Amino acid sequence: MINMSQNVNIAIVGLGQIGIYLYNELRVKKGEIEKKSGKNINIVAISAKNKNKKRKFKIDKKIFYSDPLNIFKKKKIDIVFECVGLSDGISKKIVETALKNKINVITPNKALIAKHGNYLSALAEKNNINLEFEASVAGGIPVIRAIKDGLSTNVIKKVYGILNGTTNYILSEMEKTNETFEKVLKKAQQLGYAEPGNPKLDLNGFDAFAKVRILSALAFKNHISKSKCLMEGIENIDLKDIKIASQLNLRIKLLGVTEIHKNRLFETVHPCLVSKNSYIGNVKGVMNAVIIEGKPIGESILQGEGAGPGPTSSSLLSDLHYILKGNINNPFGIPSKKRKNLKSFNSNNYTNSLYLRFEVKDKSGVLSTITNRLAKYKISVKRIIQTPDKIGGKATIVIITHKTTEINAKNCLAIFKKNKYILKFPTLIRLYN
Amino acid sequence: MINMSQNVNIAIVGLGQIGIYLYNELRVKKGEIEKKSGKNINIVAISAKNKNKKRKFKIDKKIFYSDPLNIFKKKKIDIVFECVGLSDGISKKIVETALKNKINVITPNKALIAKHGNYLSALAEKNNINLEFEASVAGGIPVIRAIKDGLSTNVIKKVYGILNGTTNYILSEMEKTNETFEKVLKKAQQLGYAEPGNPKLDLNGFDAFAKVRILSALAFKNHISKSKCLMEGIENIDLKDIKIASQLNLRIKLLGVTEIHKNRLFETVHPCLVSKNSYIGNVKGVMNAVIIEGKPIGESILQGEGAGPGPTSSSLLSDLHYILKGNINNPFGIPSKKRKNLKSFNSNNYTNSLYLRFEVKDKSGVLSTITNRLAKYKISVKRIIQTPDKIGGKATIVIITHKTTEINAKNCLAIFKKNKYILKFPTLIRLYN
Repeated sequence: MINMSQNVNIAIVGLGQIGIYLYNELRVKKGEIEKKSGKNINIVAISAKNKNKKRKFKIDKKIFYSDPLNIFKKKKIDIVFECVGLSDGISKKIVETALKNKINVITPNKALIAKHGNYLSALAEKNNINLEFEASVAGGIPVIRAIKDGLSTNVIKKVYGILNGTTNYILSEMEKTNETFEKVLKKAQQLGYAEPGNPKLDLNGFDAFAKVRILSALAFKNHISKSKCLMEGIENIDLKDIKIASQLNLRIKLLGVTEIHKNRLFETVHPCLVSKNSYIGNVKGVMNAVIIEGKPIGESILQGEGAGPGPTSSSLLSDLHYILKGNINNPFGIPSKKRKNLKSFNSNNYTNSLYLRFEVKDKSGVLSTITNRLAKYKISVKRIIQTPDKIGGKATIVIITHKTTEINAKNCLAIFKKNKYILKFPTLIRLYN
Repeated sequence: MINMSQNVNIAIVGLGQIGIYLYNELRVKKGEIEKKSGKNINIVAISAKNKNKKRKFKIDKKIFYSDPLNIFKKKKIDIVFECVGLSDGISKKIVETALKNKINVITPNKALIAKHGNYLSALAEKNNINLEFEASVAGGIPVIRAIKDGLSTNVIKKVYGILNGTTNYILSEMEKTNETFEKVLKKAQQLGYAEPGNPKLDLNGFDAFAKVRILSALAFKNHISKSKCLMEGIENIDLKDIKIASQLNLRIKLLGVTEIHKNRLFETVHPCLVSKNSYIGNVKGVMNAVIIEGKPIGESILQGEGAGPGPTSSSLLSDLHYILKGNINNPFGIPSKKRKNLKSFNSNNYTNSLYLRFEVKDKSGVLSTITNRLAKYKISVKRIIQTPDKIGGKATIVIITHKTTEINAKNCLAIFKKNKYILKFPTLIRLYN
């Protein structure tokens, strides 16, 4: 941050759930922030699609701009909050324009940072300005600052956790209430835990994967990776899987994992079966948790509310404080030029014990068809649970296997796409190692 | 930090377990730290009591000083690590002298900060220099930075957790192995988890209380309090209590708690009975955990290894990075003059459900003596478990009460100091609210 005078002009672009909450917080806490930082802060511009939309807090229409890019032309801005949330389009344009004009940027936008973080951070460094995005990962938990500052001299080998509150709420709630995915999703939408329109980006793992990418870049001092190792969501998790898991003292969690595996970067997001007695198995509801494994620190856990305007705003304001204190910072901790370009691990070689659920016609020979196929691919079975269905001569066969590679499992299971006794393609859930 | 040139001279005072590990880390990671910070760092002075003592890593005797205060006379120092660890004496003298000479100080010394933090932080601010002590609370967990920066705009109402790894190890191990306090303490000493000479400051809660004080000052923007609300250690916890707790699905944990209660500061350290199903009940061994309750953040948890040279050194080096980056910082987040002076809550009014264990002669009338006494003080009983002892006509009576105040419980129990049927003064453990 350079040459910030005593008076700091702030713009907020995007007045959705997050932006409007932030707008209110900044006004309510103005005195406190000024006392702490010794600067005078003023919101001099706000922007959103619709000026007259009904909002939770009343806005000052005199400082409203329909076109956010006009703000930079008409006002001297020191810090802009980008709260639109797109990975491209106007979000990218605002951040880009601000950085080029030596204006500090604070954003909770993980999609943008995960996609354009390399470019934008280099731009920020070139202009000697801050680009802060604490709120982009794990809401209110200060995990980015922890990795960048608190654990900065550790050699981190793995970061993983529950990075998406929506899916964690759905999985927890399904287990608790015995309600179906569809029913619980609807409830999540009503409670504001899932997007009312299109919750896809939460459900399919995309949101968690964006966070994994940001964490990788920070933890391993790497550029943000462009290749996608493995991303699966929870759309295919059935209440049945949750119940069977529970009987096995297991619980299904959507985990995001990034680690260095054989000198390569391995980033994954997929549902995992974890022990009910494990720490991660007990992070419930909309909570997020991030576990950092490093040397010499050992295992560090950070847990907190991962979403919602309150926690997000807490992180946005902590970034504001950071900038107001005059701290200069490379967005990813070290200069872009010094960041690595790790190659990605081939996910075909990813090795796990598997939970396989087959829905079959209850006919003799079906089980042996399955076990023969597994044997052919040298996938050894640890446990089989066959449950006859009361209706219609069907049965559920659950098999827990010993460890096998992704590619082997894929090849092995391919045959079951068309088998008249196997009613649907088997559900596969990996056991967390 | 002012006028730090490209070359940064470092001194380490104290080469015990922490100091010697730090010394080695600084040498091993010199290149990496220099790359990241853009500064050249050099250890130009070290000091300890005994120059020729056998140490884990070999020291450079050419830069050894028997009297640490001589370092400041003979060398230009930019940053000093104080790793002696006393609350007064030479520790205080070193830090004081350094700050007066505009030398940055980094220390893991909680006893010093808890006792003299108000004075020393004012001194640091006056000289526009950093005094950093991330390692003083919860080892490698960056909890101080989290409160100071990451959660800086939250209104925090409570911070609590397991702040002492030694006692947590002892309690966990007693439950796991069914071994006595004395036996497990010996094991802890052999493993380096407890001081071999005098483990008293860990066991009696003093160490945890120092951390509570530091956390209070940070969380509530308060001066470090001088009054002691309530401090109890685990010395009186018997294996019997752990077993009985376990039957009740409870677990004993030494919790440090600081909160604002009726506009007053309430700081406590004492053993608590917590649910086996709670998060805090499952933090085991030498792990530390800090839970921060604030608005708008909600509940944030930070967990990690709380002690040992590795985690401690991780925090010391993160402080170093912070200083090398040129960040200026008030030691407690806001200027000393703006920190509050909260009055302390009167612990007599502290209200809890109680676990009371009486060891009695197995005579008729004893139980009614106890229950009558409780009734007289309006302490109502939730649960009674009486177990006859196989040997010698004795019995154990455990009573779980409904909530009552400290003063009431104290007055009620006083009579049992001299009662010929009550073999020892009853053990009291508070249930965590």
